[in-house]
Amino acid sequence: MTTYTAPVEDTQFVLHEVLNVSQSDIPGYDELDRDFTGAVLEEAGKLAKNVLEPLNKVGDEQGCKLENGVVRTPDGFKEAYDELRAGGWNALDCDPDYGGQGMPHLLNTAVSEYFTSANIAYAMYAGLSHGAIAAIQTHGSDQQKATFLPKMIEGEWSGTMNLTEPQCGTDLGLIRTKAEPQDDGSYKLSGQKIWISAGDHEMTENIVHLVLARASGSPEGIKGISLFIVPKYHVNEDGSIGARNGVSCGGLESKMGIHGNATCVMNYDEATGYLIGDLNKGMRAMFTMMNEARLYVALQGYALGEIAYQNALGFALDRLQGRDATGVKNPDGPADPIIVHPDVRRNLMDQKSFVEGARAFCLWGAKLLDEAHRKDDKDADDMLSLLIPVLKGFLTDKGFETTVLAQQTLGGSGFTTEWGLEQYVRDCRIAMIYEGTNGIQSLDLVGRKLGLNGGKTAMAFFEEVKSFLKENEGDERLKGPFLDPLKEASKRLQNAAMFFMQNGAKNPNDVLAGSYDFMHLFGHVCLGLMWAHMAKAAYAALDAGTGNPEFYETKITTGKYYMARQLPMTETNLARILSGSETVMALDAANF
Amino acid sequence: MTTYTAPVEDTQFVLHEVLNVSQSDIPGYDELDRDFTGAVLEEAGKLAKNVLEPLNKVGDEQGCKLENGVVRTPDGFKEAYDELRAGGWNALDCDPDYGGQGMPHLLNTAVSEYFTSANIAYAMYAGLSHGAIAAIQTHGSDQQKATFLPKMIEGEWSGTMNLTEPQCGTDLGLIRTKAEPQDDGSYKLSGQKIWISAGDHEMTENIVHLVLARASGSPEGIKGISLFIVPKYHVNEDGSIGARNGVSCGGLESKMGIHGNATCVMNYDEATGYLIGDLNKGMRAMFTMMNEARLYVALQGYALGEIAYQNALGFALDRLQGRDATGVKNPDGPADPIIVHPDVRRNLMDQKSFVEGARAFCLWGAKLLDEAHRKDDKDADDMLSLLIPVLKGFLTDKGFETTVLAQQTLGGSGFTTEWGLEQYVRDCRIAMIYEGTNGIQSLDLVGRKLGLNGGKTAMAFFEEVKSFLKENEGDERLKGPFLDPLKEASKRLQNAAMFFMQNGAKNPNDVLAGSYDFMHLFGHVCLGLMWAHMAKAAYAALDAGTGNPEFYETKITTGKYYMARQLPMTETNLARILSGSETVMALDAANF
Repeated sequence: MTTYTAPVEDTQFVLHEVLNVSQSDIPGYDELDRDFTGAVLEEAGKLAKNVLEPLNKVGDEQGCKLENGVVRTPDGFKEAYDELRAGGWNALDCDPDYGGQGMPHLLNTAVSEYFTSANIAYAMYAGLSHGAIAAIQTHGSDQQKATFLPKMIEGEWSGTMNLTEPQCGTDLGLIRTKAEPQDDGSYKLSGQKIWISAGDHEMTENIVHLVLARASGSPEGIKGISLFIVPKYHVNEDGSIGARNGVSCGGLESKMGIHGNATCVMNYDEATGYLIGDLNKGMRAMFTMMNEARLYVALQGYALGEIAYQNALGFALDRLQGRDATGVKNPDGPADPIIVHPDVRRNLMDQKSFVEGARAFCLWGAKLLDEAHRKDDKDADDMLSLLIPVLKGFLTDKGFETTVLAQQTLGGSGFTTEWGLEQYVRDCRIAMIYEGTNGIQSLDLVGRKLGLNGGKTAMAFFEEVKSFLKENEGDERLKGPFLDPLKEASKRLQNAAMFFMQNGAKNPNDVLAGSYDFMHLFGHVCLGLMWAHMAKAAYAALDAGTGNPEFYETKITTGKYYMARQLPMTETNLARILSGSETVMALDAANF
Repeated sequence: MTTYTAPVEDTQFVLHEVLNVSQSDIPGYDELDRDFTGAVLEEAGKLAKNVLEPLNKVGDEQGCKLENGVVRTPDGFKEAYDELRAGGWNALDCDPDYGGQGMPHLLNTAVSEYFTSANIAYAMYAGLSHGAIAAIQTHGSDQQKATFLPKMIEGEWSGTMNLTEPQCGTDLGLIRTKAEPQDDGSYKLSGQKIWISAGDHEMTENIVHLVLARASGSPEGIKGISLFIVPKYHVNEDGSIGARNGVSCGGLESKMGIHGNATCVMNYDEATGYLIGDLNKGMRAMFTMMNEARLYVALQGYALGEIAYQNALGFALDRLQGRDATGVKNPDGPADPIIVHPDVRRNLMDQKSFVEGARAFCLWGAKLLDEAHRKDDKDADDMLSLLIPVLKGFLTDKGFETTVLAQQTLGGSGFTTEWGLEQYVRDCRIAMIYEGTNGIQSLDLVGRKLGLNGGKTAMAFFEEVKSFLKENEGDERLKGPFLDPLKEASKRLQNAAMFFMQNGAKNPNDVLAGSYDFMHLFGHVCLGLMWAHMAKAAYAALDAGTGNPEFYETKITTGKYYMARQLPMTETNLARILSGSETVMALDAANF
């Protein structure tokens, strides 16, 4: 019942008219001309629509099954995996030295959006592998790289990340999984990991687990954690698959959504593992992959918002109910399509204006990641680090909200399984939780990122907004609808940061109690900035008479909606922040 | 894994210290002394905790099944139904002339909250019966009352409401179900109804369907709709059950939540029906029951918020993760309970301050209903009519949000089926949709209710706020934290209403595009008023030295939180409203 069409024109607009990728000096970006990205995106869009989307409901209904120790993925997932793997889609931005295609991460991100919209439970299998590949690429020894990367990049093997244990989620210092050093330099790992996405399945012939554990003799707490590679099957010297290692799936989690992805309890029973990176530096190894992982989760938020919006829109155009208050629009029908009703439009515009702004924000983040990695640009890396908690927290909160709005567009049909919208709501909900809950993102933002480089990175962000405002202040078309509200929202963000500075030393709770609203305030400023950029680009195209004027006029109108109807939220965010921590902290725990 | 304790002390506080029920001159309220209501509430709380709550997850997991034309409810539902029926709980506020207990609706509402928190899917069976009883009581002939009411009130038979058809939800003028008049004065009904809650089951020996249909020869549209009684089994002259009537369950809807409630496709195939009320006045008959039905859905929103909060709180007190930023609180444990973290508290306080405010608001609504019915007080009836869309729309939106917040408190555990929170989210979602979507509520508010009696009812509401502010302006304890923010929020609500008045005639879309935010703005003012009342009552008790001071201090702190952290939302609501309809209406439907 659901449909999906990849928003290629929108992605192209962001890549080429907002981020101007082919004019960038980031190595590899010269290849990203409009025709090339267009061809890649069209092809990815077709796969998303024709291969992945039809399996989305199948995945939800069948889920994964653990049978005699073997995890079965839903019907068709393995075939889809083989088809995408054959097309090289897993390896798009991987290292060419190990068989990857060496494309910028930006392009991979754009493509990931489509796959994720179409079928998040499926897309996560490749997403998790991608994280494991990045970890080995960055921290592995040459031998580890040679052993694991070619097979993983080719997609013959997949990968997972193993962090959480029953007693520790956020607080990884509490990890109990033990690693006993062996004479041959390997370790024997024992312990239990939970909530391991894509933890076990038969889509690939081997699975390479990256596992956080504490080596014997290492200190307590976070400083004694190391990262290990634990393959599901031992790997022989010649690279072939050997005997089963001591790791197995102990159960599948029953959960609200993403049923098609196997969320596993993983039991390690003297499993052979190999230290990756330095002993006791496991957290640092995780941290270097965190930006990429969190950026991907940010994407999940708006990617599900996108497909939910598309289906809500389809319903609103078809469903006949009631009449336009200002005059009948469909006189030959029994009623008008519900899109005539202002409140239905409000709902749809909330969805549309968020998703399009979010796409620009997320692709900006991906460009910063490329800049950091490919140019070794520390400023870009720092800016990305500042923005990551905003990207992850804000885009997944608002993405979830968007799926709920889209569900509401359908009325009673939205609550039924048949129409599919309720699945998007259930699937999207996880994005607010994993890869660090959004509460944790907000703490990361105010506790760590805001003070990065003594606050210089945050200042650089404000400068970026300011210089855009200054550069464009002469454009009357931008000023009222875009620049003024952006300026005001940015000022509010600065006021909030100032409040934190003034009060934080005296009372850290004044900062912590406002962290969540600060993250949202920051997010709105970022989307406001994105919309101002997009409006500028759209006016430029209209002035130049290039492209489809309706496309650009629609962009401008959608942007105006965001500025007028979403940015006022920053007023509320600021008021909540300035109310401080008193009412938050006043109750004794016993009196809640 | 979930637990529930009925918040009897909170309910008692609202009934006796805020609404001062036993001093009211509403007939029947003199019986509602503190001991009596306490005994009823304690007993209801025990049933909710011990009988209904343990079946909540069972109902979700098993759902209902249609087997050989028979709908099977989840294990234990029938036994629970029999137990509650034997205790007279179905008949609490029903007419004593037909076997009811004649209690005020207020008490029934307070009790319904507990049953609904514990198991909404179960509670809906009795809830739907209650609506059907009210319809027959109000519009039925003496013979119809005598035939149906005693059995329904006793609970031997149940009832349903049949409105929706595939082509018509909101727009009931499109109803196609036909009613052919017969020589004996009865009708033969043919057509299909969908999404009929509690539409079929075997918990009662007969089901009395109230069905909207169009009699042959009646006009097109809404003016040709009549209401009919269609029993599942014919009723013999002596009141005993006869042959099966031509109505059957054609299928069960697969849906996001409330799995334990049978949501049925109902097929009418020349089913014998009896006109209730006047021919072609079916909508009027429905309208008279609407306030009560919508008040019950409003209750569902915060009732699920309440149980979600209780379970989130339990988790936050138990779960050890991280350390208090201002100093270790649990030095003997591996970490502090997460309730020490300000952002976890923010989350919990959002939940708590909403639920307690919502309870007061909803019980105020129930009191108005009693005033309207028992005193035949038109002003109370009008005030309730004004508030109903706010109660339904705001309390279910915020109730759902509360379940999502509570789920977030649990982190990854919140996403798992095991912990139960995700069920509250799924179950609560329907409350925003049925009994008129919340978008429809907002249209009802601005299109119909705001102008009720030429705006006098709305003015009376503003007067009520104003006179409370005036009355208490000398109380310094109330002024800063309660009266000032309430005054400001109320002013914003008046400004919004003014904007509608000034622009509505010229451009109705300026009103309609702001309707949703207006509903929320109104809701915040109502909860602000409730919190101000509760704070006043709490200070009075503290001054008098009665009761448990911690209870009252907690109330005041919780209220301060709501005023400081929730009422600022009204600023954003107003800004969105004042932005008018331009950005909402600008896009052609084809350009979305």
